Amino acid sequence: MQKAVFYHAGCPVCVSAEHDIIQLVGKENLDIIHLGEQQQYIDAAAAAGVKSVPALVTTNGNVLHINFGASIADVK
Amino acid sequence: MQKAVFYHAGCPVCVSAEHDIIQLVGKENLDIIHLGEQQQYIDAAAAAGVKSVPALVTTNGNVLHINFGASIADVK
Repeated sequence: MQKAVFYHAGCPVCVSAEHDIIQLVGKENLDIIHLGEQQQYIDAAAAAGVKSVPALVTTNGNVLHINFGASIADVK
Repeated sequence: MQKAVFYHAGCPVCVSAEHDIIQLVGKENLDIIHLGEQQQYIDAAAAAGVKSVPALVTTNGNVLHINFGASIADVK
């Protein structure tokens, strides 16, 4: 099954949101990508419509920007 | 069991996010409150830290502001 993708960048807001999303959705239903450490995924995240992190891209392609940690431009 | 509370105001961003959150979390795990129609909950939402809708307040009290539909001030 395709998973929702949680993009973050290790910021405090991201870590808190990651904890909450794992609790809500279940870790087994998520791909978690740290854009600060896995910069090869930044273009894919931006193409999916991610404008800031933390963000959750659902299996149907919708982007949920959760609170605001950092913009994608800041992560690059 | 205590449920997460999804606050919204019927705006297009809210409706889209509501659909996504229900799919992710499950409707049975959510209380869904339309602040435009249930204005008696606005103070409780603000006290919980909700600054804009749509927002999800988790069972441990964290507030996840999802995208941005409207500020709480606009809903009043």
